[in-house]
Amino acid sequence: MDLRTPALNNLLDEWLNEDLGRGDLTSTSIPNHNCSAYWLAKQKGVFCGGALVERLFKRLDQSVETTLLITDGSSFDAGQCLLKIKGPAPSLLSGERTALNLAMHLSGIATATAALVDDLNGTGVRLADTRKTTPGLRTLEKYAFRCGGGVNHRLGLDDAAMLKENHLAWGNGISNTVEAVRSTAPWPSRIIVEVETPKQAEEAIHAGADGILLDEIAPDVLQELVPKLRHLASTKSDHKRSRQIVLEASGVDPMNLKIYAATGVDLISTSAPITQSKWIDFSMRFE
Amino acid sequence: MDLRTPALNNLLDEWLNEDLGRGDLTSTSIPNHNCSAYWLAKQKGVFCGGALVERLFKRLDQSVETTLLITDGSSFDAGQCLLKIKGPAPSLLSGERTALNLAMHLSGIATATAALVDDLNGTGVRLADTRKTTPGLRTLEKYAFRCGGGVNHRLGLDDAAMLKENHLAWGNGISNTVEAVRSTAPWPSRIIVEVETPKQAEEAIHAGADGILLDEIAPDVLQELVPKLRHLASTKSDHKRSRQIVLEASGVDPMNLKIYAATGVDLISTSAPITQSKWIDFSMRFE
Amino acid sequence: MDLRTPALNNLLDEWLNEDLGRGDLTSTSIPNHNCSAYWLAKQKGVFCGGALVERLFKRLDQSVETTLLITDGSSFDAGQCLLKIKGPAPSLLSGERTALNLAMHLSGIATATAALVDDLNGTGVRLADTRKTTPGLRTLEKYAFRCGGGVNHRLGLDDAAMLKENHLAWGNGISNTVEAVRSTAPWPSRIIVEVETPKQAEEAIHAGADGILLDEIAPDVLQELVPKLRHLASTKSDHKRSRQIVLEASGVDPMNLKIYAATGVDLISTSAPITQSKWIDFSMRFE
Amino acid sequence: MDLRTPALNNLLDEWLNEDLGRGDLTSTSIPNHNCSAYWLAKQKGVFCGGALVERLFKRLDQSVETTLLITDGSSFDAGQCLLKIKGPAPSLLSGERTALNLAMHLSGIATATAALVDDLNGTGVRLADTRKTTPGLRTLEKYAFRCGGGVNHRLGLDDAAMLKENHLAWGNGISNTVEAVRSTAPWPSRIIVEVETPKQAEEAIHAGADGILLDEIAPDVLQELVPKLRHLASTKSDHKRSRQIVLEASGVDPMNLKIYAATGVDLISTSAPITQSKWIDFSMRFE
Amino acid sequence: MDLRTPALNNLLDEWLNEDLGRGDLTSTSIPNHNCSAYWLAKQKGVFCGGALVERLFKRLDQSVETTLLITDGSSFDAGQCLLKIKGPAPSLLSGERTALNLAMHLSGIATATAALVDDLNGTGVRLADTRKTTPGLRTLEKYAFRCGGGVNHRLGLDDAAMLKENHLAWGNGISNTVEAVRSTAPWPSRIIVEVETPKQAEEAIHAGADGILLDEIAPDVLQELVPKLRHLASTKSDHKRSRQIVLEASGVDPMNLKIYAATGVDLISTSAPITQSKWIDFSMRFE
Amino acid sequence: MDLRTPALNNLLDEWLNEDLGRGDLTSTSIPNHNCSAYWLAKQKGVFCGGALVERLFKRLDQSVETTLLITDGSSFDAGQCLLKIKGPAPSLLSGERTALNLAMHLSGIATATAALVDDLNGTGVRLADTRKTTPGLRTLEKYAFRCGGGVNHRLGLDDAAMLKENHLAWGNGISNTVEAVRSTAPWPSRIIVEVETPKQAEEAIHAGADGILLDEIAPDVLQELVPKLRHLASTKSDHKRSRQIVLEASGVDPMNLKIYAATGVDLISTSAPITQSKWIDFSMRFE
Repeated sequence: MDLRTPALNNLLDEWLNEDLGRGDLTSTSIPNHNCSAYWLAKQKGVFCGGALVERLFKRLDQSVETTLLITDGSSFDAGQCLLKIKGPAPSLLSGERTALNLAMHLSGIATATAALVDDLNGTGVRLADTRKTTPGLRTLEKYAFRCGGGVNHRLGLDDAAMLKENHLAWGNGISNTVEAVRSTAPWPSRIIVEVETPKQAEEAIHAGADGILLDEIAPDVLQELVPKLRHLASTKSDHKRSRQIVLEASGVDPMNLKIYAATGVDLISTSAPITQSKWIDFSMRFE
Repeated sequence: MDLRTPALNNLLDEWLNEDLGRGDLTSTSIPNHNCSAYWLAKQKGVFCGGALVERLFKRLDQSVETTLLITDGSSFDAGQCLLKIKGPAPSLLSGERTALNLAMHLSGIATATAALVDDLNGTGVRLADTRKTTPGLRTLEKYAFRCGGGVNHRLGLDDAAMLKENHLAWGNGISNTVEAVRSTAPWPSRIIVEVETPKQAEEAIHAGADGILLDEIAPDVLQELVPKLRHLASTKSDHKRSRQIVLEASGVDPMNLKIYAATGVDLISTSAPITQSKWIDFSMRFE
Repeated sequence: MDLRTPALNNLLDEWLNEDLGRGDLTSTSIPNHNCSAYWLAKQKGVFCGGALVERLFKRLDQSVETTLLITDGSSFDAGQCLLKIKGPAPSLLSGERTALNLAMHLSGIATATAALVDDLNGTGVRLADTRKTTPGLRTLEKYAFRCGGGVNHRLGLDDAAMLKENHLAWGNGISNTVEAVRSTAPWPSRIIVEVETPKQAEEAIHAGADGILLDEIAPDVLQELVPKLRHLASTKSDHKRSRQIVLEASGVDPMNLKIYAATGVDLISTSAPITQSKWIDFSMRFE
Repeated sequence: MDLRTPALNNLLDEWLNEDLGRGDLTSTSIPNHNCSAYWLAKQKGVFCGGALVERLFKRLDQSVETTLLITDGSSFDAGQCLLKIKGPAPSLLSGERTALNLAMHLSGIATATAALVDDLNGTGVRLADTRKTTPGLRTLEKYAFRCGGGVNHRLGLDDAAMLKENHLAWGNGISNTVEAVRSTAPWPSRIIVEVETPKQAEEAIHAGADGILLDEIAPDVLQELVPKLRHLASTKSDHKRSRQIVLEASGVDPMNLKIYAATGVDLISTSAPITQSKWIDFSMRFE
Repeated sequence: MDLRTPALNNLLDEWLNEDLGRGDLTSTSIPNHNCSAYWLAKQKGVFCGGALVERLFKRLDQSVETTLLITDGSSFDAGQCLLKIKGPAPSLLSGERTALNLAMHLSGIATATAALVDDLNGTGVRLADTRKTTPGLRTLEKYAFRCGGGVNHRLGLDDAAMLKENHLAWGNGISNTVEAVRSTAPWPSRIIVEVETPKQAEEAIHAGADGILLDEIAPDVLQELVPKLRHLASTKSDHKRSRQIVLEASGVDPMNLKIYAATGVDLISTSAPITQSKWIDFSMRFE
Repeated sequence: MDLRTPALNNLLDEWLNEDLGRGDLTSTSIPNHNCSAYWLAKQKGVFCGGALVERLFKRLDQSVETTLLITDGSSFDAGQCLLKIKGPAPSLLSGERTALNLAMHLSGIATATAALVDDLNGTGVRLADTRKTTPGLRTLEKYAFRCGGGVNHRLGLDDAAMLKENHLAWGNGISNTVEAVRSTAPWPSRIIVEVETPKQAEEAIHAGADGILLDEIAPDVLQELVPKLRHLASTKSDHKRSRQIVLEASGVDPMNLKIYAATGVDLISTSAPITQSKWIDFSMRFE
């Protein structure tokens, strides 16, 4: 994760302001001595957010020092000590909740992602996320997804084009719409077409799509379709049209990951680890 | 919810920027005609976020019109139409994801809250939230909690004081710490003391606390403690000390809500509907 | 005062930008050597704003060092040296005006507050401020009021509810309006009702108000009313209704503070030290 | 006043956020019907801030309509109706305090300025303000000063250069410092030199200053000095040196304005109407 | 161009604030009547920025109406009328300079781009821009480049990866570095390798690059290399490695575009239309 | 240049965010070791932007150290080393493009300005810039103009008043319009009148203008007009009217600078070095 962007500093400031409001009534009333604390995992999981915690406390108080005992993406057990922190007592207490909220939420996503990624282990198929993310937390939630072993899909509407049902309808069909996007998008942007039938998938390849999102297509249909699409892509000789095609299945029940993996697609995309996961419980203990 | 704050406008803008980035590559390539759409619930639940959806689309494009068919806090069934929306096709498509993410997340919280509130029905005990909220979404998640029938706890560190274990230790005991906060906090701020033993609870009342958070105290101990504390509070004659005391149980397993409700506390606080809930699935269908 | 909020950093930056504009034409033309200065009080008063001065110069130039010789809330005499400061000459000169403006304004409020607080000395009655504050300076002016010995009233519209004449009229009477607020406000928020007659005051206690603001009620009427209200509050047995009531007199001429204090109210609120005070004169002298 | 700057919109938003915080607990609980109100002057004075009030309510709620019954800079009597306003009751109530605070503060400055300007009536001498302004309110307070009949001095450190004692000392004398500023400042910027002796004043004219601030110089000394300086300026033939000189007296006790006006200076500058004035009392009455 | 992003609104506001500062001294002094104006081209060129002009005036004053007489990307002649505008005289005058500056700068880029694109006419080779753009104007300058007929390269460091000499050196060679990026970047991101020799180019294809930037390679070397690279890419059978390769020449003198186009590359990238172009002169005439 | 304004920090952050977007995909994938680099001039010119480069890297990463080997405003030759820089490799790579873009653009302006200033060498006439600047870069481009030896004209609409054709028409003539501005503008603001005929110029002097912008008036007409205007100004005895007049020629072809300089005007203003200049090419080389 690229923690250096000034944009992230602003987010951290806003989150602190959200909790501090017009000032912490309680913590500013206690003596300003230094103290130490550590974070304890109350359940097992995959960690995410260490560097953010460090940075968040620094935004509140330059003198707080954090020592990370685990790297993002590593597993931890219940009872494991995750990080140590020291600094002025009021600052540790005032930043505690915001820092925990952030890391517990992100670790929940990393943990849920890792569970699904395990199911795909050995298949060569990768798990991808979606744009279903909590408003304001897109890049961090996608980072957590990656810490859990997944691969990120596009980060927003501006780094890759995806043509859905309505784009295709209003853009006057697959071929015209792909052409319209190709003519205005930066050349490195990949163009992905979402289809619901084998016929649309073939049309998308003819139109020169770089990726096909195969939405809610049954595994047995996919099994047959995937090699056909790969062959079709590779025999297209036109320069402008993509011969390397990325095939992605979506609308997949997490229970059926292995069955879909066997169809030969490159990716299975799912929003579940972000929209259906629970926070992992950490506790900040003072010494 | 107070939707008029300029602060909320900034949040809506940031969320749109998060997804649009340097501009939507796909939707700006299709013709700019007007179209209509509606939102369909794919599972049942309690709705939250209607006015936010309306406002979000307005921030993106003044000409988008939204008609809400359900009020925040109302229940809906799977298959129910929740709202109608019309405007330029590119604007509906570009705002779709952010608007859905927001409403699906908040409705997930409202729905999970309502399930727990049902358990307390008829007991006179209220369910309260905590400060465990997703960074950046505090006021909205607390609003969703209220839509589900809960009552909000303090909104941040600045509208009520809560003295926890470490404040009390470093502030040199319950009595001194309460006094220190009382002397600097605005007079309307309530002072709440978190305790883990009956003895601490009594001390807090002597110190003049306005509320006692009884953390992880067994129901049978509470049963006996609650009337004792109420009596103690009412017989304190000193002006400065609170005689109306709010008793709140925390650290309660959601399975045991009724048992705790029977102890006579005023509130049971829980972070579960915010940190452990799943998004409710909505779909935006174009006509 | 909680100086750690990122929100305060932004205010300090804006105030510097307000004066610096597109850049200080004069001070950037002189040699960049280090120099020392001190602040001299040109009249006596109560000091406020030391830490803000320190922080303001740091925002302009990290290398400026400030040494405070007096704490906020302490009295000073004419001719007393208040703080010492050293750093690059252009930075001391460019920040001088903004820093002085801030501290002179706040010290004016602290000084005016202290004069009134002196009048209440020994009565047990506290002086409270209002929401009449200069736009943009609310928390700092309220902090200055506290430095002068006063107690803060609510900080804004969101940390306590106050029902005034029009809320009560449009909310359909005291009882209904208090109920409406109680059902949506966070539970730690106190509900205060502003009344102009003894009858309304009693009604507010029946409705379960936590505080009564007794506006423009004559001292002799108050004298009789106060014990009656306290009795009424203490005999109300209903759980939901407040038995500890805070009684506050407003609309009091500062000349009559002692007379009002004798009526037994808890607080007398006044905007005078914030809206009617004059700046205290300080001078920054270079060595 | 130029109300169109996007910068002003941000200020208005911040001021509303300052009071609304996480949302108005009280006003959002009452029914959302339309209502009317008017502003009543409770004492006489000179009005300032009408357009700001109108704009502030619009930022909170587009549907609020304000009708101004008095223009900025006009006098009003106690009991006079200043403006009418209508819109949703919660919006009028939530914006009331911030709008009143702004207009009462600015009208206080306009009124205090007008009193001093009256003293100079018929003398041809103008009253000028200084950079002693409340942080965050510089342009508005200077606008209020103008509404009271004064003329503004420079708006900040960047639109005119003023060389004070320390600039001159560290810049190696009047002549060198004026030269240094002249070589980097935009050509339309006037260069003003603050002096404390007749000798320095003459030196400043030789150096080519555009204005001389005569600080704490006795009226009898000024009487003699002013014509001498004007003559000196007019006989300097060098192109680069100013022959039109603006002479400004400062450090003048407001009681002695007429005596100083008689010395022939162009301007008398004073911070008093901004730093020593009191708010004028207005009341918002609902119909 | 996607004009709907809230981020663009902020930029427009900042640009207006930059010129207006504390308020337009001149235009606010003239009567506030309505007037009409039009824009006249003083030289021929390709237009860019119409919608921005419209939006900019709206940010300053909602009542200004702009009618565009030419679309972005169209050619115009000297003396042609480009747009009409009407509204309050002070608003037209205050926004005039900022609007003209924006459109004249962007039209300069569109015009310079179109001149080079003409040279490539009929070759099938596209002209691409670079990240050499004026700070703060990246998306708008790239939009102008597209209006001139060019195709955009990546918009920033986050929508495509480009490995340059130092990335490759410090990342331990082409193969390792490509692999490192592939494992963390979102899957739709293309990976481009910048090379200076044929050997490096082949290595990059083996490593699975999606694009090769052939920097400062002589046309005759390219002529031979291009088909070789295409063949190599198409015979790579590994799934993960790209078989469709985009070949881009850079470091090309604009005089030699045709020679390079003949080598069979897909793209020629150049910063010249953005860094070496002059503004096109427009005049705003009042009626 | 005044680099201390918090406003500049925000600009630097925005420019970094513009390029980094959601994070640098490439540079964050390479090892985080320290490295050194230097900047090489690829053509000769006049340097501008050193301190900005230093500050920009610091905003991205506090640990980057820059050593400037040339001061702003100094000439350099092709092949000259301009600055040295060291720090973490990913930070040097991620900030490289933005820093170079800034310095190359500004040095282009400084270089173009210096070429014209050379033409005026020995004439005593100064070259002034205009408000034709790239949106968002006004103060920096004007600083670059000064580094090239020019003198800045007003920085915006708020630090000096300039009355153009339409102001004069709508303000009801020169005399009335000057008077209207004089009555509301701060007294240190100069009032400049743009004229196109000798008659208007004389009228402007009668009206008390501080400067006359003589637009598109032929050199031979100017030759005669200039001494006449100076005489007229000096013989005006009225106090309020300016006797020192600044005469500025505009609409001058850069080829004819010397001819215009001979007419005796004080200034010749031109936008050419800002709107018609090309970037100077620098290269960042890693060691």
